[in-house]
Amino acid sequence: MHNPDSTNPMNTENFAATRAEQSDSVENISATKAEISQPASDAEHVQQSPLIRLRIDLAYNGMNFNGWAVQPKLRTVQGEIEKVLRRILHDRTAQEQPTIRLTVAGRTDAGVHASHQVCHLDVTQAMLDGCVGHMHVDAVKALELRLSRMVPNDIAIHRVSIAPEGFDARFSALERTYVYRIADAQSTYDPRQLSYVWHIDDELDIDAMNKAAALTIGLHDFGSFATPNPGGTTIREVKTAYWRRVPMRPLIDDPMGEQYRTPAIESGLLCFTIVADAFARNMVRSLVNGCVQVGRGKRSVDWFAQKMQVPLREGSTGPIAPEGLTLEHVAYPPNDQLASRAEAIRAVRTLD
Amino acid sequence: MHNPDSTNPMNTENFAATRAEQSDSVENISATKAEISQPASDAEHVQQSPLIRLRIDLAYNGMNFNGWAVQPKLRTVQGEIEKVLRRILHDRTAQEQPTIRLTVAGRTDAGVHASHQVCHLDVTQAMLDGCVGHMHVDAVKALELRLSRMVPNDIAIHRVSIAPEGFDARFSALERTYVYRIADAQSTYDPRQLSYVWHIDDELDIDAMNKAAALTIGLHDFGSFATPNPGGTTIREVKTAYWRRVPMRPLIDDPMGEQYRTPAIESGLLCFTIVADAFARNMVRSLVNGCVQVGRGKRSVDWFAQKMQVPLREGSTGPIAPEGLTLEHVAYPPNDQLASRAEAIRAVRTLD
Repeated sequence: MHNPDSTNPMNTENFAATRAEQSDSVENISATKAEISQPASDAEHVQQSPLIRLRIDLAYNGMNFNGWAVQPKLRTVQGEIEKVLRRILHDRTAQEQPTIRLTVAGRTDAGVHASHQVCHLDVTQAMLDGCVGHMHVDAVKALELRLSRMVPNDIAIHRVSIAPEGFDARFSALERTYVYRIADAQSTYDPRQLSYVWHIDDELDIDAMNKAAALTIGLHDFGSFATPNPGGTTIREVKTAYWRRVPMRPLIDDPMGEQYRTPAIESGLLCFTIVADAFARNMVRSLVNGCVQVGRGKRSVDWFAQKMQVPLREGSTGPIAPEGLTLEHVAYPPNDQLASRAEAIRAVRTLD
Repeated sequence: MHNPDSTNPMNTENFAATRAEQSDSVENISATKAEISQPASDAEHVQQSPLIRLRIDLAYNGMNFNGWAVQPKLRTVQGEIEKVLRRILHDRTAQEQPTIRLTVAGRTDAGVHASHQVCHLDVTQAMLDGCVGHMHVDAVKALELRLSRMVPNDIAIHRVSIAPEGFDARFSALERTYVYRIADAQSTYDPRQLSYVWHIDDELDIDAMNKAAALTIGLHDFGSFATPNPGGTTIREVKTAYWRRVPMRPLIDDPMGEQYRTPAIESGLLCFTIVADAFARNMVRSLVNGCVQVGRGKRSVDWFAQKMQVPLREGSTGPIAPEGLTLEHVAYPPNDQLASRAEAIRAVRTLD
C-alpha cells in the first residue's frame, strides 16, 4: 500500500538515482548566489537587454507526468511547458536564444497533481513582442493564449502576467497548501477519480489520525518524514494539518424537483489538508503515510510522536502513493514584501 | 467541438459500422420473447437447475472503454466484467457452463461514465456455491468480494445482491438520471477532471440553454436528437432537464483556521441534469449538443423548438463529446411492481 523510502540520503549515488521517485514537493532553499542573480541568461546578455519576469499560474493532472522537474527523456510538466515556450518565444528571436527556464513554487513528484501551481520565467521584450503575430492583444496576453492552446490537455494555463517587482515564484512564497484525498471503506469509490484519489478498503480511525496530524503543527525538524536537499534542512513550519471527511452534499443546490439528487463527486472522501511555509522532499506523502498507519491501527499515536521528537529517516516513514496528492495553493505576501521575503528565505533554515 | 452525426439511420451498413460510436445510452425496448424467457441459458438447462438472478451495482470511468456493450477485440465494460465472472463462476462448475451474460440498465457509449450503473446476471446455485472457496462469507458476498478484487481499477463493484422477484435491470427501471459536465469560459478548468468534464473556451448563455432544455420536458418523439433501434421508437418521457452552474464552495465545511480554503473540485462547472423514463440511442449527447449550440448563439431557441416539433435526424443535431457524460442513477419501483413494470416496458412505445 505504500512505497517505503529506505534510501540513505547520505549515499549520493542512490540519492541521485531515486531522486525523481522520492521528491513529492521540494523547495530548494540553498540556491547559490550565481543562480539567483542570473536566473535565465548569461551575465553579458542581461546587460544587453533587461529581462522581464513573467508569473505563470497553472494546473495539471500529474498522472501521466514524471513529476514537475525536467528529466532527460521523461515526460515532465516543466519539460512540456518549456518545449512549448521555446517554440513560441524562440522562433521569433533566433539571434537572442536565451535559455527558457521555469522556476516553480512547489516541485511535485511523479503522479502528484496541482490545481494551482505558480512558476516564473524571465524573457526579453523582443521575445515577448515576437509572440503577438497577427493577434489583436498585448504581448503578455498573446503569450498566454498561445501557451494555453499549445500545451497538452493535462496542463491548464490559467494566467500569464508581468510579475511584480521582487517576485520569485519559489522564494517569495509565504505558504503552500496540499490536500491528500482518500476513498476508504466508508467512501463509495468513484473510478472517475482514479487519477487523483487514493483508494483503500480499510476502515480508518480519523480521531487517531487527527491526533497524529496535530503533532506536526509548529516549527519542527521533519527529519523522520522528509529527505533534506544537499546542504538543506528538514526544518519547516506547519501552520495547519488535519483530516476531515467531505460531507455528503448534492452537486446542484437548487434542483428542479427530481427525486434523485446527484451527489458532488467528492462526497464522503477523507481529506488531509496541510499548510506550511514550505515542504521538504517527501514530506507531505510521508506524513500522510504515518497518519494512515496510525489510522489503520498498525502504529500508535505515540509512535508518531516519537518520530516527530527524534528526526530519523527510516523505512516505516516513507512516502504514500502519489495519486492522492494535490498542490492546491501557493500564497504570496503583499507586493511590497516580495523582495524581502525572497531574501529571507534564501538563507538555509536552521533551528537557531 | 462536436462530432456531428450525419449517418442515415436507414442505411443498415453505415448503421452497423458506426454503432459503437453513436450509442450513448440505449434501452432496447424491442427484445424478442425468446430473449426474455431464456435470459442466460438454453431451455433444457433451465429445467435442470433453476436460475438465481443477481443484481450488480457498479461504477466505471469510461475513458479507456469502448462503451458498455461487448464488442469483439475491443475493451468494453461488459466484456471486462464478464471475463472476470467466467473465471470466478466457471472454473468451479465446468460441467454446467451456462453462458455468463449481463443485462444492463443503461448502455453507455465509448468514453461515457457511470457513477451508478445497474445490471443483472442469472446463475445457478452450484455456480454461486463454487465462489465461496475458503472464504467465511455467504456465496453472494464471496462473489462480490472476488469480483471487486479482480476487475480492473477503472471499474468499481459496489454491491452484488440477490435480485427481488420480477427484477430486470433494463425493463424494470422507472427512470435514469444523466449529468453532463462542462468547463466553459466562466469555469477554471482543472485537468484532474480531464476524463469526465468537457472543456470549451466559449461563453455560454445559460438562460437560452435552459429555455431549450425546458422544451424537452414531457412525452415527445426525440427523432431529431436520437436514432431509433431497429423496430424501436425515439419516443421518451423526459421528467426533468435543466442547466445549472455548480456553486463555488469549499471542499471542507469546518476548516482549522487556514486562510486559503480549497474549493470543491466541481465548483463553477456548468452541469446539465436530465431525468427520463429511458433514453434512445444518442439522445442525451445530442440534446446537450443542441443546447450548447443555442448557448453559443450559433442557433436560436426557435431552432431547437423546431427540432422538437419535427422529429428529423440530420447533421446539426448529432452527439457532443462523450467525456462530459455520466449515468448517475437508475430508479426502480417498489419490489411488488418490478414484474408489472418490466412487462409494460417490454412493449414498443408508440404515440397512441
